Amino acid sequence: MSIENLGTYPPAAVPQWLSLGSNSWILTATTLVMIQSVPALALFYAGMTRKRFSMNTVMMVLYSFASTFLIWAILGYSMSFYSSSIHVGGLNFLGLPLPVWSLPMFGEATYGPGGTQLNIPFLTFVMFQFAFAAITPGLIVGAIVERTNFKAWMIFSPIWILVVYAPVAYWLFAGGWLNQLGAIDYSGGYVIHMTAGYSALALAMAVGQRLPRERKVEAHNLLLTALGFGLDWMGWNGFNGGDAGGATIDAAIAVFNTNLAAAAAAIMWIAIDMKVFGKSSFTGLANGTFAGLVAITPMAGMVNPSEALITGLITAPIVWLGIYKLLPRLKVDDALGVFPVHGIGGTVGGLLTGLMIDPTVSNYYLPGYRGALFGNVHQFLVQALAVLVVGLYSFFVSLGLAKLIAKVTPLRLDRDAILHGDFYIHGEASYPDLYLAKSDQSVTHREKLKEETEIK
Amino acid sequence: MSIENLGTYPPAAVPQWLSLGSNSWILTATTLVMIQSVPALALFYAGMTRKRFSMNTVMMVLYSFASTFLIWAILGYSMSFYSSSIHVGGLNFLGLPLPVWSLPMFGEATYGPGGTQLNIPFLTFVMFQFAFAAITPGLIVGAIVERTNFKAWMIFSPIWILVVYAPVAYWLFAGGWLNQLGAIDYSGGYVIHMTAGYSALALAMAVGQRLPRERKVEAHNLLLTALGFGLDWMGWNGFNGGDAGGATIDAAIAVFNTNLAAAAAAIMWIAIDMKVFGKSSFTGLANGTFAGLVAITPMAGMVNPSEALITGLITAPIVWLGIYKLLPRLKVDDALGVFPVHGIGGTVGGLLTGLMIDPTVSNYYLPGYRGALFGNVHQFLVQALAVLVVGLYSFFVSLGLAKLIAKVTPLRLDRDAILHGDFYIHGEASYPDLYLAKSDQSVTHREKLKEETEIK
Amino acid sequence: MSIENLGTYPPAAVPQWLSLGSNSWILTATTLVMIQSVPALALFYAGMTRKRFSMNTVMMVLYSFASTFLIWAILGYSMSFYSSSIHVGGLNFLGLPLPVWSLPMFGEATYGPGGTQLNIPFLTFVMFQFAFAAITPGLIVGAIVERTNFKAWMIFSPIWILVVYAPVAYWLFAGGWLNQLGAIDYSGGYVIHMTAGYSALALAMAVGQRLPRERKVEAHNLLLTALGFGLDWMGWNGFNGGDAGGATIDAAIAVFNTNLAAAAAAIMWIAIDMKVFGKSSFTGLANGTFAGLVAITPMAGMVNPSEALITGLITAPIVWLGIYKLLPRLKVDDALGVFPVHGIGGTVGGLLTGLMIDPTVSNYYLPGYRGALFGNVHQFLVQALAVLVVGLYSFFVSLGLAKLIAKVTPLRLDRDAILHGDFYIHGEASYPDLYLAKSDQSVTHREKLKEETEIK
Repeated sequence: MSIENLGTYPPAAVPQWLSLGSNSWILTATTLVMIQSVPALALFYAGMTRKRFSMNTVMMVLYSFASTFLIWAILGYSMSFYSSSIHVGGLNFLGLPLPVWSLPMFGEATYGPGGTQLNIPFLTFVMFQFAFAAITPGLIVGAIVERTNFKAWMIFSPIWILVVYAPVAYWLFAGGWLNQLGAIDYSGGYVIHMTAGYSALALAMAVGQRLPRERKVEAHNLLLTALGFGLDWMGWNGFNGGDAGGATIDAAIAVFNTNLAAAAAAIMWIAIDMKVFGKSSFTGLANGTFAGLVAITPMAGMVNPSEALITGLITAPIVWLGIYKLLPRLKVDDALGVFPVHGIGGTVGGLLTGLMIDPTVSNYYLPGYRGALFGNVHQFLVQALAVLVVGLYSFFVSLGLAKLIAKVTPLRLDRDAILHGDFYIHGEASYPDLYLAKSDQSVTHREKLKEETEIK
Repeated sequence: MSIENLGTYPPAAVPQWLSLGSNSWILTATTLVMIQSVPALALFYAGMTRKRFSMNTVMMVLYSFASTFLIWAILGYSMSFYSSSIHVGGLNFLGLPLPVWSLPMFGEATYGPGGTQLNIPFLTFVMFQFAFAAITPGLIVGAIVERTNFKAWMIFSPIWILVVYAPVAYWLFAGGWLNQLGAIDYSGGYVIHMTAGYSALALAMAVGQRLPRERKVEAHNLLLTALGFGLDWMGWNGFNGGDAGGATIDAAIAVFNTNLAAAAAAIMWIAIDMKVFGKSSFTGLANGTFAGLVAITPMAGMVNPSEALITGLITAPIVWLGIYKLLPRLKVDDALGVFPVHGIGGTVGGLLTGLMIDPTVSNYYLPGYRGALFGNVHQFLVQALAVLVVGLYSFFVSLGLAKLIAKVTPLRLDRDAILHGDFYIHGEASYPDLYLAKSDQSVTHREKLKEETEIK
Repeated sequence: MSIENLGTYPPAAVPQWLSLGSNSWILTATTLVMIQSVPALALFYAGMTRKRFSMNTVMMVLYSFASTFLIWAILGYSMSFYSSSIHVGGLNFLGLPLPVWSLPMFGEATYGPGGTQLNIPFLTFVMFQFAFAAITPGLIVGAIVERTNFKAWMIFSPIWILVVYAPVAYWLFAGGWLNQLGAIDYSGGYVIHMTAGYSALALAMAVGQRLPRERKVEAHNLLLTALGFGLDWMGWNGFNGGDAGGATIDAAIAVFNTNLAAAAAAIMWIAIDMKVFGKSSFTGLANGTFAGLVAITPMAGMVNPSEALITGLITAPIVWLGIYKLLPRLKVDDALGVFPVHGIGGTVGGLLTGLMIDPTVSNYYLPGYRGALFGNVHQFLVQALAVLVVGLYSFFVSLGLAKLIAKVTPLRLDRDAILHGDFYIHGEASYPDLYLAKSDQSVTHREKLKEETEIK
C-alpha cells in the first residue's frame, strides 16, 4: 500500500525505505530463534541429563542467553557487524567495539564494510543477529553437562562471544575476509554450528570427563527433550527463513529447503537404525533431524530443493557414524554429542555448500554465486578453506580461553558437588519436592541427597 | 511502500505480484501449524497415555510429520493442488503426481484447475499446505495408541496421505469436484478433521482394542497434555488465520471467530460438566475447546462473530454426548476420543457451514457465497453432500488400506510388546532412569519391566 | 507493493488503509501474547505448586482465559476502547458496553474518544487487546494458589475484567482521563501489571493463607516452570513489540529495549544472589528477568536503550528486596510473589517512565512526549498520579468484589478440599497414574490421597 495510507503512524516510524512486511517477518523470525534457545534448547538438553543436573543444565543455557544480550548490546554487535573495522591489506577482520546506542540505531539496517542495506530497521537486524549469537554458547553446553563449574561458565560464555563468535560472524556474515574471498554462510552453518561444535570439543577436553560410572547418558525425561526438539525444529523456519533479510521469495525457498533436508535426514536415520538395531528410537530421529537442519543451514536459500533432499540423505549417515562409531572412541567426553551433530554436520554442510550453490536459486539472494557442480570449483575451495579456518580457530581459541580461565577458577566441579548436583550448585533442584519435606527441611534434604548419591 | 524502496533485495526476490506482508503472515501461520503437530499434538497425546507407551505415541506423530513432508514434496502437493488433473465430465478429481521441483516453484502461488492465484510465493503455499497435511495422520494416532505396530504405521501413514488426504484436499481446497458443485471448506473442517476422525474410527476398528484391563485412559502427565493443548489452541490462529491467503481483513475475521467459537465451547462444556458431575475437569475443558475449534474451521472466515459464538455453543453439547454417551458404547476402541472430537465436531461444523455462510462476511473472501439462513438452501445441501462423501470415503479407504497392510505386517503389537511398551518397540523410554541403573543395566531393566507390567 | 498487485484478494479484503505488513505483525504479536497465558503462564505457575494443586492452578488460568474472551467480545472490548463514553467535565471514564458485532467491526482499527486510527483491521486490534486482558487475571492466580475455591474464581475473574481491567484500560490505553492528563502506558505496565499486582494482594488477603505447614512454596517441577518462563519471556516480543500498532521502527525499538531490560535485570539479580547466598538459582533468575520485563513495559517504545539498561539494573534490586525482605513479613499470603514482581515492578516502571521518556524516541510513537530527565517534570507527576490511582483502584475494587462474592460462595476451599486438592476439586489430577490403579480405583485413590496428605 502506498505510504500516504500510513498517515496514522508518525512519519518517522514509517520511512520510505521501510518494508513493513519484511520487518514483520524478521521480528517474527527473531522470536522463533530466541525460543529455540529458551525454552527449547534448555529443555532439550535438560531432559537428557540426570535429574540432579537438569536444573544446572537449564541455568547454563539461560545464563548464556541473558549474558550474551548484554555483551551483544555493549560490544558484540558492533564487533560482529559494524562497518568500520580492523583491516589488513584490504581484508576486514573485526568491527570496532561500540555500544549499540552509539551507532545510528534508529535508521535502516546497514552492516559490514560495504555498508550492505536491508529494508528493515537497524534494531530489528541487531535483534535477529543477537538471537543467533545467544544460541551458540547454549549449544556448547550439551558437551559439558554434569560436571562443569558454573562460575567458570559464567566467565567463559560472554568472553567466548567476543573472541570466537564475533570474529567468525564478521568474516562470514558481515562481509569480512572470508566473504571477501567469496565464501558464503547463508544462515550460520559455520558461524553458529561449526563454532559451537568445535568449541564444544575443546571445552569438553579442558573440563574433563563425567564420573566414570556416569559416562553414559541417563536421560531423565525424554518428553521434555521431545518438546525442546519440536520447538527447535520449527524455530528453524525463523533461523533459516530470516536470513533472506525480508519476506522475499528467498525466505520461502529457505524454509522449504530447510524442512526438506530435515525430513530426509530424519527418515534416513530411521532407516539406518531399523537396519542396524532393528528398531528406531526418538533420540535417533532427533539427531537425524538436527543433522539435516545443521547441514542445510549454510546454503538454505541458495540451493534447489532436490539438492536439499540430497543434503539430508548424505548428512544423516555421516553424523550417524559420528555418534555411534566416533564418539564412543573419543577420550573427550562430549556428553550429548554436540561435536558430531553440530561440528561434523556443519562441516559436511559447509563443504556441500561449495558444491551445490545453484545460480538459478542464488539469483533470489546473491545473484551470480554458483557452486562447483555448476562449474565454479573456486566456490568449493573457498568453502573448504572456511571450514578449516573456522574449525581450527574455534577449537584452539576455545581451548586457550578455557586454560586461561582455569587459572582463575576450576573448570570442573569437585567430586562432592558432582555427587550432589543442582542443590549444591544452585540451592534448588528441578523437582524440589523430592528433597523437601514437612518440618525439618535441612536434615531431610541432606539425607535424601545422601540416599540418592549412594544409589547412583 | 513502493517497490523502488526494495532495491536492496535482488529484483527477482521481490517481484511486482509479491505482498511482503502476506508472505510474512503465511510463513508465520505455517510455523504455527507445524508447531501444532510437533511438539504440541505429540505431547497432548503422550501425556494422556500410560508412561510405557508415551514415547511410542510421540514417535508415531513425529514419524507421520517427517514422512509426510517427503511424500508431500515428491508427490503429495502436486496430487492435492496441481492445475492439470484427472477429470471426468468437467469435474476434477486429482492432480498429477509430480515432484515440487518440476513445477514452476519460484513463482507466484497458483493452484487448482482454475489456476487461482495468491500474492505469495509458490513455496510459501506449498509449506502452508504441507503443515495441514502433516497434522492429519498425527490426529489419527490418538485413536490407536497403546497397541499399534509401529511398522504398520510406518506404511499406513504416507500411503494414507496419497489415497485419502490428497484427493479430499483436491476436492475441497483446490477447486476439485466438490468445490465445483459449490461446497466450501474454509480451513479444513472436512479436509483435516473429518478425514482424520473417520479414518481414526476405521483404523481403531482394524487394529483392535487395547488390553481389556487397560481400556480406560490412564493419563500419566496431564501437564504435558495441557502444554500441547495450549500450543494447539493458539496455533489455530495460524491454522484458520492463514487460509485467507494473506494478511487481509479476512485473516482477522477468521482469527476472531476461531477464538470466539473455542471460548464459547469451552465455557459451555464447563457448564455441562458442572451440571452433570458437579465439577469441571481439564480434559473436559480441552475437549470442549477443541470441539469449538474443529466446528468453526470450515467456515472461520465466512461467518459473522455472532454465528461463531452459536457454533461453539451448539457443538460443545453434541461432542460431549459423543464422548460420554456414544464412545463408551462403541465396540471400537478409539482410545483418546478422536472420532467424537474431530469426526463428529467436523461433521457438525460442516453442516453449520451450509447454514451460516454470511454474504456480508464472505465478501472478504469469496464474494457471493451465502448459506441456507441467508436464503441459499443449495449451500446446505452441497455441504451435506460433502459431509457424506468425505466421511464415507475416509472411513472405507482407510479401512481397506489397513486390511491391505495387514497382509504384509500385523497391525497390532503382540501381547509381549504391549506389556513392555516403549523399550520393546523403540529401545528407549520416556523416563529411562526408571529403567536404567548403576552397574548391570540389562538385568535391572528386565526386572523393572516385569515389575511394572505385573502391577498393571 | 502497489495495491493493484493485490487483485487476487477480494477488493474489500485489502482496502487502501490496510498495511498488510502491520496486520501480519499484530496478528503474530497477538498469538505470542496468547501463548504467554496458555500454556506459558499456566505451566509457569503449576510447576511451582504442590503436585496436588498443579491441575487446579492450570484450570484457574485456563478458565480466566476462556471466560475473558467471551466477556471481551460481548462487553469488555467496547467498555475498554469504544469511542462513545461516560464522561465528566471533558474527561472520559468508560466506554459503552456493546458486543463487538454491533460495532463497525470489518473496518479499520479506531479506538478511544479521539477516534485514534491504526492501519490494521478493527478485529486484529480487538484480538490483540483481548490477549492483554486475558493474561491479567491469570497473573493474579499466582497469589492465591493452593486454597482458593474454584467456583468463587469462576465468578470473580469475568467480573474483575469489567470493573477493574476495562476502566483502567480506558484511562490509560484508550485516551481516557489519565491519558487526557498526559499519562502514558506504552504496553501495560499499569493496565496489566499494576492492576494484577495490587488486585493479587487484595485477593490473597480476602482468601486467607494456605495451610500453616504449607506456607512455603513447594515447587513440584521447576522444568515446567522453566518452560513457561521461556515462552513468557519470548512472548514479550509480541507483548511490547505489538504496541507500536504496526511493524514500524518503534516495534523494533520496543523489542530491543524489552530484552535489554530483561537481560540486565537477570544478570543483576544473579549478581545479588551470588553476593548474598553464594549461589544463583533459577527462580531468582526468573524473578529478575520478569522484574526487568515488567518495569520496561510502560515505556518500552519511548526510551533510549541505555535507559532500558538502567531500568533493568534499578528494578532488579528493588524487586529482590520485595521478594526476600517484604514478602516474608507480610501477613498476606501471596504464594508465588505476584505483588513484588508485578505490583512493585510495575510501580517502579511507571515512575521511571515519568523520568525517562526520551523525545528522540517518542518521536517514533507519540511525537512531543518527554520525561522529567528531559525537562518535563509534569510527566513524572502525572505518571506518579497514575501509579496512585491504579494501585488504589485495583486494590480496593478487587477487595470489595471479593467481599461481595464471599456472600454468595466461600472464597476459600474447606480443609478437606485443601488436603485432597485436584481430585477433589476437578475429579482429575495432573499425574493420574499416581492415584489410579488396576481394579478398584476408588479405594486405591482414597488411600493414596490419605497417604499423601499424611506425609505432608
